[in-house]
Amino acid sequence: MQQNGTTNIMADTMKAVFKSILLKHGFENDKAETCAAIFTANSVDGIYTHGVNRFPRFIEYIQKGYVDKDAILSLQNKCGGIQQWNGNMGPGILNAIHATGIATALANEFGIGCVALSNTNHWMRGGTYGWQAAKAGYVFIGWTNTTALMPAWGAKDARLGNNPLVIAIPYKDEAIVLDMAMSQYSFGAMEQSAIKQESLSVFGGFDTAGELTKDPSAIIQSKRPLPIGYWKGAGLSLLLDLLAAILSGGLATHQIKNKKAEAGLSQVFIAIDISKLGNSSAIAGIIENIINDYKQSVPAGEKDTITWPGERVLAAREKNLANGIPVVTGIWQQILQLQ
Amino acid sequence: MQQNGTTNIMADTMKAVFKSILLKHGFENDKAETCAAIFTANSVDGIYTHGVNRFPRFIEYIQKGYVDKDAILSLQNKCGGIQQWNGNMGPGILNAIHATGIATALANEFGIGCVALSNTNHWMRGGTYGWQAAKAGYVFIGWTNTTALMPAWGAKDARLGNNPLVIAIPYKDEAIVLDMAMSQYSFGAMEQSAIKQESLSVFGGFDTAGELTKDPSAIIQSKRPLPIGYWKGAGLSLLLDLLAAILSGGLATHQIKNKKAEAGLSQVFIAIDISKLGNSSAIAGIIENIINDYKQSVPAGEKDTITWPGERVLAAREKNLANGIPVVTGIWQQILQLQ
Repeated sequence: MQQNGTTNIMADTMKAVFKSILLKHGFENDKAETCAAIFTANSVDGIYTHGVNRFPRFIEYIQKGYVDKDAILSLQNKCGGIQQWNGNMGPGILNAIHATGIATALANEFGIGCVALSNTNHWMRGGTYGWQAAKAGYVFIGWTNTTALMPAWGAKDARLGNNPLVIAIPYKDEAIVLDMAMSQYSFGAMEQSAIKQESLSVFGGFDTAGELTKDPSAIIQSKRPLPIGYWKGAGLSLLLDLLAAILSGGLATHQIKNKKAEAGLSQVFIAIDISKLGNSSAIAGIIENIINDYKQSVPAGEKDTITWPGERVLAAREKNLANGIPVVTGIWQQILQLQ
Repeated sequence: MQQNGTTNIMADTMKAVFKSILLKHGFENDKAETCAAIFTANSVDGIYTHGVNRFPRFIEYIQKGYVDKDAILSLQNKCGGIQQWNGNMGPGILNAIHATGIATALANEFGIGCVALSNTNHWMRGGTYGWQAAKAGYVFIGWTNTTALMPAWGAKDARLGNNPLVIAIPYKDEAIVLDMAMSQYSFGAMEQSAIKQESLSVFGGFDTAGELTKDPSAIIQSKRPLPIGYWKGAGLSLLLDLLAAILSGGLATHQIKNKKAEAGLSQVFIAIDISKLGNSSAIAGIIENIINDYKQSVPAGEKDTITWPGERVLAAREKNLANGIPVVTGIWQQILQLQ
């Protein structure tokens, strides 16, 4: 056991434990293998909230029937480069991997492809699908809606989702992946800061008196997290929900919030096959020149480092693959009991 | 003349003045008509910074040869639903209208269409093309890169553009249009606040000491405007520039900043033909239900009103069409002298 009540678990061990639990809960072998691999990869990459920390709730949702472990997505409508699929309430990870694969296949055929997916479930870490598409050589733009957890700008009751948006491009043998929710901080991140009695680095929401605050506990109490860019992120959240619901024909945030649990989401997956572009042989150079210029930024302070979206993930991955994944000991014990 | 040194100009008068100036500067009749109409419409809609206030600089850029008034865009590469076009340094408004039309035509054929445009110029108000596509019945996602005017997160020298992103959907006979730059405030908006000696409503950037501030003059001095959502908007700005440059084969922000003036931009126009979707007859209802729920938000304070992106534009439009467009008198006199 390590300091701070964490245990380091090697990736192979974690994946084997996850897979055995999924098999015990009736998952087919291939599906158990894929879900275990993704929950482990998210943890290896340092995205614990959508990796190991979330695994027990995933099992709970299977047990309660919110997620149908056996369901697979089915085609609803096709029109050239855009297709509408029904996720049939299957596991969000499996549906999203499948949808990303269809979007890239459509891009292969039509240059640009779009899959709109209804009745799916939490895809955990959106960046997973950005990496999937970008490492296969595609540009990716995708997003999901969520339940309501953020007020409109100027309001105090939650009617907007945090609707994570993912944009990814191939970069060397890896990918540049932006994976950002529309709230400045997730409730998960604020709960972590509250437990550690730490202040947020910037304003994260309003307190119950309606004042902007960096106190995570005050924001958890008021239920008024801040949209990124104030009115701007609130507007972007609304539009992403509108697009997800329109394009998929599935549920919008206002409908998801009335369900017992966050289930039945709508998602969009857009891929572009950059090998089909007239400048395809120049693209690696274009990206490298942009990143090189970006990295020449003058740090504002001695402690500041300039990183591109996804760069820190690679550092976490290297460290966690070598040393094991740091897991809160209580969470790991809870997972072991699911075996 | 009105109070605050403004003059109200009726839309027809403004458009006629703009057109006469464009004709005098050698524009073909159709192009003069379109540019005059867009500069006027942007002003009618209350977007003065990209309407009447910007018109003199547009003429200056024509005179200096940064913008080629006679150039039209040409096809570089086509692959199914995605096409790459060269703007040949023509007027940004004309190129963007044309590109939006091509994107919607591609969407008509392939369900989803994408035009990537290189070597174009400032499109003025990005929302123009969102309204164009949405009023024709299409969903629209588009963005432009710009010159460098915002530092990376953790940096103090400007290497990122504010890269406005536009998302639009049809709504009743109008459109819901999000048109947002990646900086919390534009320099134009901060200059206006500085002149009026007004504080910004939220943090707009850093002062020269590296502290967050609402003082527009301090931010103009430090040249460190704040990205929306801090590190998140900085990351989104980088990705939008990467995508614009990759997809179009045109210039990236780091190259634009080395030019004498902001010219030779890269832009992306994506359209989706929602009439081709399996749920097309239900879409108007989906949108209305989302907006109805959104509008039921409980205002945080007595002065708060909950509006969807584009709603305030409609109010400004109605007022300005009825009463005339309020123009700073000095700017209008400057424009009249261009005739």
